[in-house]
Formats: sequence, C-alpha cells, structure tokens
Amino acid sequence: MNFEMAAEIAEGRTATIVTDDDVAVENSTHSIGRRGVAGTLIVEKIVGAAAEKGADLAGCVALGERVNARTRSMGVALTSCTVPAAGTPTFSLGEDEMEMGVGIHGEPGRRRVKLERADAIADEMTTAIAQDLDARDGAEALLLVNGFGGTPAIELYLMYNAARRMLEKRGLRIARSLVGSFVTSLDMAGCSLTVSLLDTETTALWDHPVRTAALKW
Amino acid sequence: MNFEMAAEIAEGRTATIVTDDDVAVENSTHSIGRRGVAGTLIVEKIVGAAAEKGADLAGCVALGERVNARTRSMGVALTSCTVPAAGTPTFSLGEDEMEMGVGIHGEPGRRRVKLERADAIADEMTTAIAQDLDARDGAEALLLVNGFGGTPAIELYLMYNAARRMLEKRGLRIARSLVGSFVTSLDMAGCSLTVSLLDTETTALWDHPVRTAALKW
Repeated sequence: MNFEMAAEIAEGRTATIVTDDDVAVENSTHSIGRRGVAGTLIVEKIVGAAAEKGADLAGCVALGERVNARTRSMGVALTSCTVPAAGTPTFSLGEDEMEMGVGIHGEPGRRRVKLERADAIADEMTTAIAQDLDARDGAEALLLVNGFGGTPAIELYLMYNAARRMLEKRGLRIARSLVGSFVTSLDMAGCSLTVSLLDTETTALWDHPVRTAALKW
Repeated sequence: MNFEMAAEIAEGRTATIVTDDDVAVENSTHSIGRRGVAGTLIVEKIVGAAAEKGADLAGCVALGERVNARTRSMGVALTSCTVPAAGTPTFSLGEDEMEMGVGIHGEPGRRRVKLERADAIADEMTTAIAQDLDARDGAEALLLVNGFGGTPAIELYLMYNAARRMLEKRGLRIARSLVGSFVTSLDMAGCSLTVSLLDTETTALWDHPVRTAALKW
C-alpha cells in the first residue's frame, strides 16, 4: 500500500522491483512466492548509486533485478517484537526457543525450535543460502548481518564471524561486509544473514559514497 | 586495570582524565565519587580530534577536563544484561520495573521504580541533568541519547524527541546531537541522556572528521 501510494505521488515516473531473497520459505500465509527481506537494502544501495550516477529508469530496473537474483537471505528470531499500538508481543517464544526463517515483521518461518549455539544457527542459515545461491567456486560476495532491533552489536559480530567462516569453507570470498541493525522489526531480537554475489560493476556501486540516516561512507 | 595496563604499554607517555558525568548517584557501592558514563564518548571524540590536529599531551588533558566539567548524564535500565560467562542476568527487574540512574555496566542507580511513560522518564533525567549543569540561558549543547545495546533506534529517537523538547524549555539550544548505541552493556535495554555544553572550539573539534568503528563523519 505504501509503495503504491509513493508511486502515485511520483505520477507514474516509477518502476517496481519485487525482491524475493528469503530462502526460508517458498510461500507463507502472508505472501505469494518468496518474501523480500534484508536483501532489499543491497538492491536499494546499488540501484541508488546507479541512479545518482545518471542511470535511466530502465537501466535501474535491470540492475535491481540482477542484484536481487544474486541475493539470498535467511533470518532467525529469538523474541517477538511488540507493536506499540498493540502493546503485547506479536507472537510468543519461550526463553529457550527460536523461530528459524522468520520474516522481517516477525512472520512465521520454517519452524520453531530449541535455541542452539551461534555456530549451529549460522550453519543452518548459510547452508540454506549457499544451496539456493549455487555460486561458482571463488565467487566474490557481500555478507550482510542484519539485526532486527533488539540484538546488540557484539552478538551480530559473533554471527558474522561464524557465517563468514562457513561461507568461505563453501568457496565464497567475502569481499564486502556490513554488520548492524538496518532492516528492523522494532525490539525483536535476532538477525538475518544475507549473501549477495558481486561483480566489478556492483562492487563499485556498493562502494560509491552514500549519506543517509542508516548508511554513511 | 585495563586502562593502567594500556598506560604501561605506552611507556609513560600518557595522562589520565577521570570522567564523572553521572548525576544519578554521588557515590555507589562500585565507585568513590561520581561515575563516568556515556559522557566519556564526548570527551574522547573531542580530545581525539585535538590530538589529531597536533595538540600536546598537557593541552589534551586540559581540554578533556574542561569538556568533562561541562558534561552531565543519567541512565535508565529496563532490563539487566547477561554476561555470557555468567549465563544469567546480572540483576533482575520485573516486566513493569526500571532502574533509574543505572551505571553503564548495570551498577545500581538511584532507585528501582515502576515503569513510566517516556516523557516522565525523560523529565526526571533532564531535570537532574539541568539542575546539576546550571547552564546560562541560551547555552549551546550537544545532546547524546545512548542506547545500552538492547534498545532499538525507534525508542532512542522517541527519548531524543522528549529530552530535546524539555531541555529547550529550560533554555538550552541543542546545537549538535548523536543518537545510537555507543557506550553499551551487552544486551541491556535502556538508555542514557548526556548533555555537554559546547563552545566554538569544542564544536569545531566535535565536527572534525572521524573514522572509527562506531563514529564516522
């Protein structure tokens, strides 16, 4: 609804890129087809840089679709978020439970399981991502560890360390990285891992200077 | 201990600035005199910029003491943190309780009270800070809202909005601001407010380019 309203305000000079980077679920009660999750940040950053450098609308769409097609994510929630207007948690998880494959608003994932060590969580997530991504050996990739809002940086870096190690064992080269809370769900604890394959053009666009509230380099 | 070890490694070419910006408690079970809390970030940023511009050690010390003398903070915790090696929360707070005036490692504050609305929390904190700071009308200040690790940005900005409104009613002009989780306590929920009076020199040093893991401009 919000995206369509924004497109109306822009009076037709827009195009839509539908992201579908979430490998956790093929369909859900909330979506037809795969969901777009934190990979959206990567599409937006790279297409934004291209637009700033003068790319036309058709070029931006083609680029965004190319980035989306090379991007895969999976998330895990350790708590629900609490929407202020509701005042109670959206869903409830036991102290020793987690939701594997959660959506960015806390939508249900693959399954609810017992809490595991960070390495075991990262292994399940990177395995699902790598199998779906099917990258060639030695491919360069961007690894994004995205916190959902209630998870401190120290835990995100712990997950980054585990995920990077595992992805490199699978033959990927982590050429760029980003760790922090960007695509968030209020106070939800947990994080997602996103892997996006890079080429010379998309690496340069990722590196292109940016100055927004969330990203600055 | 860590600071003294670092000073030994630097073989005496160091000086110590003791920060004491916390207005919540005059003494605590953990400290003699007032505690240094998130105001330390402001002292470090400004003194760091001066050092980078070539100030000598004595000049850096004098500047750091001047900044510290104009800086006041107070914190509130909504949960304890859990130190990984301990595995259980350092202290326990009920769902409907908060610790007013907490230290940055979860040290006890002024008192444990029932949870209040953000405006009431900000009012107690800004009142304590402003009374202790005793600034002249129209004084320029930096307002830092610092999350403790488990609090999402949306809640920090809510507190920023409340604190800024209240400080401006008291005659301060908020000339600079910083909102985020910088001086943290693992996964502790809550935040601190810090107000630091600025002058032309310290404003320029605050604005001076910085490139660290946490601050970048």
